[in-house]
Amino acid sequence: MMKLHFSPASPFVRMVRVVASEVGLDGQIELVPTGILTPVDVHQVVAAANPLGKLPALVTDHGHRLHDSRVICEYLAHRSGRSDLIPDEPVKRFHVLTLQSQSLGIADAALAWRYEMVMRPQALRWHKWADRQEARVMMALDDAEAYWTASLADVDVGTIALAVTLGYLDFRLADWHWRKGRPALAAFYAGFSQRPSMQATEHANPV
Amino acid sequence: MMKLHFSPASPFVRMVRVVASEVGLDGQIELVPTGILTPVDVHQVVAAANPLGKLPALVTDHGHRLHDSRVICEYLAHRSGRSDLIPDEPVKRFHVLTLQSQSLGIADAALAWRYEMVMRPQALRWHKWADRQEARVMMALDDAEAYWTASLADVDVGTIALAVTLGYLDFRLADWHWRKGRPALAAFYAGFSQRPSMQATEHANPV
Repeated sequence: MMKLHFSPASPFVRMVRVVASEVGLDGQIELVPTGILTPVDVHQVVAAANPLGKLPALVTDHGHRLHDSRVICEYLAHRSGRSDLIPDEPVKRFHVLTLQSQSLGIADAALAWRYEMVMRPQALRWHKWADRQEARVMMALDDAEAYWTASLADVDVGTIALAVTLGYLDFRLADWHWRKGRPALAAFYAGFSQRPSMQATEHANPV
Repeated sequence: MMKLHFSPASPFVRMVRVVASEVGLDGQIELVPTGILTPVDVHQVVAAANPLGKLPALVTDHGHRLHDSRVICEYLAHRSGRSDLIPDEPVKRFHVLTLQSQSLGIADAALAWRYEMVMRPQALRWHKWADRQEARVMMALDDAEAYWTASLADVDVGTIALAVTLGYLDFRLADWHWRKGRPALAAFYAGFSQRPSMQATEHANPV
């Protein structure tokens, strides 16, 4: 069995779980819940699997430690032989990888906003910084709405990362109303979120 | 000509430039300096190439926009036919990709420390958060010293990311003395930093 260190609130972990489900490897992954991670403490179990102390971290059957989400997603696609998740054809491949990067960047910025405005002691919050993270999210979503919709029919590491990121915004930042003015993304998510891989991995608060 | 939006202070840009130099494509890349980026303002030229507003961003000969550093490095390796930079053999490949991820994570944490302790208004600094970033750097370097030294003889996206990250620590955080207690990393860097690709891309402050 592979071991995946995970929190049900992490969009980066969920991307890995969605890929695992899509390629049929979810039954070969033991989930190791980390409990609640704080932004300032070292979690020794996570650190043993990934010295950066970040999720997700995977330990393979042979004891190899793999991170981060991009590397683990590629590993699962490779191991299952499902190369369609990261297409070989170069134009398509770098398009998919850039959509994945863009979606990860949106999720990163959304998490940075939450670290600033939810986790950080109130007296130390820098509102301009939080605003910049929110602007990053909005501009990257606008860009996806304008330029990426033709690519959204496929199931690959790009669309999986985008769908999970939109689901994360629903989970944590619903009052940002990301669907507003973005009908193509809303339609994409309405369909993609019905996939069994998405339904089986819905976000929850860690315990 | 490809266009690369860049700052001479960014380790993520430098990784791309080192790869470009290693594969002989540096002459086909026009560098577009961004000037000084602030942590809170939108830079419209960068945002047009990458809506996340982050460096590096590459625009290909055909006008495709690619980001982030990992995607651009893979693109340059592909385009040059230099598949040794990201080996195909699976055990080696995921090892190299994880070393790249770990090195990027160290650079991310070092940058996060600087955002906190240098760029953020002094009254809003959260020292515990900065300490956590420093601990991330140190633990990930200790891990590299203990477990990764056998892999450091090759030139690939993993060793390039590690060498650039160590160079960034010298550039911005020399008083962290990363060489102390890490003779294998110090020896690796002493050799790797002599490569023409590293010498041609040394860090500098943006103007």
